Amino acid sequence: MNLTYLFLVCGVTFLHIQAFPQGVSPTIEEDFKPSAVNQPGKLYPQVNSERRVRTSILAPRASTVQLDIGGKKYDLIKDTTGIWTGQSLPQDEGFHYYQLNIDGASVPDPGTVYFYGAGRSGSGIEIPASDQDFYALKDVPHGLVSENLYWSILTNAWRRCFVYTPPGYLQDSKARYPVLYLQHGSFEDETGWPVQGKANLIMDNLIAEKKATPMIIIMDNGYAYKPQSKTELDNKTRPESIFEEVMINEIIPMIDAKFKTMASRKYRAIAGLSMGANQTMRIVMNNLNKFSHYGGFSGTSNYPSEEAVDPATFLDGKFKDGVMVNKQFNLFWLGLGTNEPKPFPGSIGAFRAMLSKQGIQHVYYESPGTGHEWLTWRRDLLQFASLLFKQ
Amino acid sequence: MNLTYLFLVCGVTFLHIQAFPQGVSPTIEEDFKPSAVNQPGKLYPQVNSERRVRTSILAPRASTVQLDIGGKKYDLIKDTTGIWTGQSLPQDEGFHYYQLNIDGASVPDPGTVYFYGAGRSGSGIEIPASDQDFYALKDVPHGLVSENLYWSILTNAWRRCFVYTPPGYLQDSKARYPVLYLQHGSFEDETGWPVQGKANLIMDNLIAEKKATPMIIIMDNGYAYKPQSKTELDNKTRPESIFEEVMINEIIPMIDAKFKTMASRKYRAIAGLSMGANQTMRIVMNNLNKFSHYGGFSGTSNYPSEEAVDPATFLDGKFKDGVMVNKQFNLFWLGLGTNEPKPFPGSIGAFRAMLSKQGIQHVYYESPGTGHEWLTWRRDLLQFASLLFKQ
Repeated sequence: MNLTYLFLVCGVTFLHIQAFPQGVSPTIEEDFKPSAVNQPGKLYPQVNSERRVRTSILAPRASTVQLDIGGKKYDLIKDTTGIWTGQSLPQDEGFHYYQLNIDGASVPDPGTVYFYGAGRSGSGIEIPASDQDFYALKDVPHGLVSENLYWSILTNAWRRCFVYTPPGYLQDSKARYPVLYLQHGSFEDETGWPVQGKANLIMDNLIAEKKATPMIIIMDNGYAYKPQSKTELDNKTRPESIFEEVMINEIIPMIDAKFKTMASRKYRAIAGLSMGANQTMRIVMNNLNKFSHYGGFSGTSNYPSEEAVDPATFLDGKFKDGVMVNKQFNLFWLGLGTNEPKPFPGSIGAFRAMLSKQGIQHVYYESPGTGHEWLTWRRDLLQFASLLFKQ
Repeated sequence: MNLTYLFLVCGVTFLHIQAFPQGVSPTIEEDFKPSAVNQPGKLYPQVNSERRVRTSILAPRASTVQLDIGGKKYDLIKDTTGIWTGQSLPQDEGFHYYQLNIDGASVPDPGTVYFYGAGRSGSGIEIPASDQDFYALKDVPHGLVSENLYWSILTNAWRRCFVYTPPGYLQDSKARYPVLYLQHGSFEDETGWPVQGKANLIMDNLIAEKKATPMIIIMDNGYAYKPQSKTELDNKTRPESIFEEVMINEIIPMIDAKFKTMASRKYRAIAGLSMGANQTMRIVMNNLNKFSHYGGFSGTSNYPSEEAVDPATFLDGKFKDGVMVNKQFNLFWLGLGTNEPKPFPGSIGAFRAMLSKQGIQHVYYESPGTGHEWLTWRRDLLQFASLLFKQ
């Protein structure tokens, strides 16, 4: 930090105190810039150096317009031309889902690219992160992200996964690659990692710097159910998840048949975030003949409990024999953002205490200043992928 | 058509006439079903057998909510719970962009998947088409659609294309394929053909039925400009399109280097819709050493003129020697929807009259009952692709 920067920070703080007595809004830094994920040519939403989000929309006959971000709603103010404008309090750096509320209607902000998360396709914003270079689109060789459609007999439905193949995959017809199966969280889908997760750019940059082994990444949809009978549908029975069976019996064989994989447990990893961490931990512990590396980002299978985990009973005693677990994993990796809400810190903490008690080696990473959101998971992938397939 | 169907159609017509004298709204068939391109679990928008679009949104404090589709706005009506519902007049079959208007704010309908077109990412709807089977997701081998990022020196910017590779492309390391360069229309982008255009599904189905030669399809972005100087930006000079240079000097060499193409004019085609038809006709006529097949969907380079085309001066006399043009093209193909508005029928008609006068052979196709929209262009691709690389 240089002195000019320090001076500016102090100057700004001083101005705030001077201009706004208690209870009055502070001044707002007028250095807003359009968000990096705006639609082409759209000036709003914008972000300033304080990490506030400002948006603006023409709604001449509306009586209230709100910006709904980070669990809070902020009133926008109408000008004489019918344009409503307003801003949020400072947000965590990284990517956030948000929406607008116009006279009680929750709608996407027409200014942004749309992202699938929180159970809907809707607006998102990027607050520039101090470490954003690791997921930036840079002048390095780029792999491909391919949409792969497949029929699933187990679910009786078409499904889709995205496949990252590293730079050079198409050119070198003989090379074979290890595979990471990488899952999204609840109310998200298979677009999460390739779009807001920026998995491809993170890998392109890591591989260019020779910090990661070139690998294939499969990003599928964690929602998979048995076809329901008419009786079940009439009774509104909650369908049973069969994602584990789909992963083991359909996805992995399809990928090994279609792509140039190294098709053995030594070269196969599985990871996920939140719900995906919970799912993939169950899958890996039930299928240790298939995987040798695991990554749990902001989630463990004891979720949502914060109670002590009993290795004798947890996941049918799969962690009972710590020596055996250590032998079976080349990498057991856990991550958490320092701003994550309950129950994540407690739940993951309880799980880690069990690992320690059992003498099970694992890598633990904390993402500074981020919550249960995508910057945490981008950083997790950066850290995790740099350790994969190296032992 | 069986008798039951005929009876139903007549019955409906009769009821309409009986119940609603001139000037009063007709009854509406209450057989609405959720649109095929709704977000998962979303019940609205819906489409009925008359091809009306009905939508519904919670907006308890709004004073007016409208459905804005096909150039008309339809008022929705509020119920006691604050939910607004209403429907349009019957629409053409196929895909349409649309939006909602809430108290003067134009926003996407939160029920649909979003599509880039009309200069924004926004709502779309599918009116089931009588021939929808040709672009349906079916149990046939599927190719891949891959996102390919590349740095463009000419525009000093990152660009993106989507690449369709046919079934078997990854498995057979020796096979090489002809290539079709396929362009979107104005205010659309490189997502148009792989998303709302369903280019991959049309090709998968054609190839499965052995009606098309397996080929690679490149779907790039038709907007490409020279980097602007500060003076030009200050003067708000309109940038000059350099898409032709980008196509010839950057895109084609990159694709031939990265993919298993048959890299000669005999196995290279170019086509586009509307603005893309205009652009690609100029590109093909300026680069006959590069291409041997052309497709113009709802567009020609004399657009928007409906005047007679003079071959001596049009495109620098490129159509002056009809015998030579016939020799140079394996396929010269034009398409138009029967419901397209001015100036498309007149403009394309004038161009065709010039071709006839010059004795230039071409294939002409009319899509029945469709306008300047995606069902026309899906049908164009079906017809055009089935003729490509066969002579």
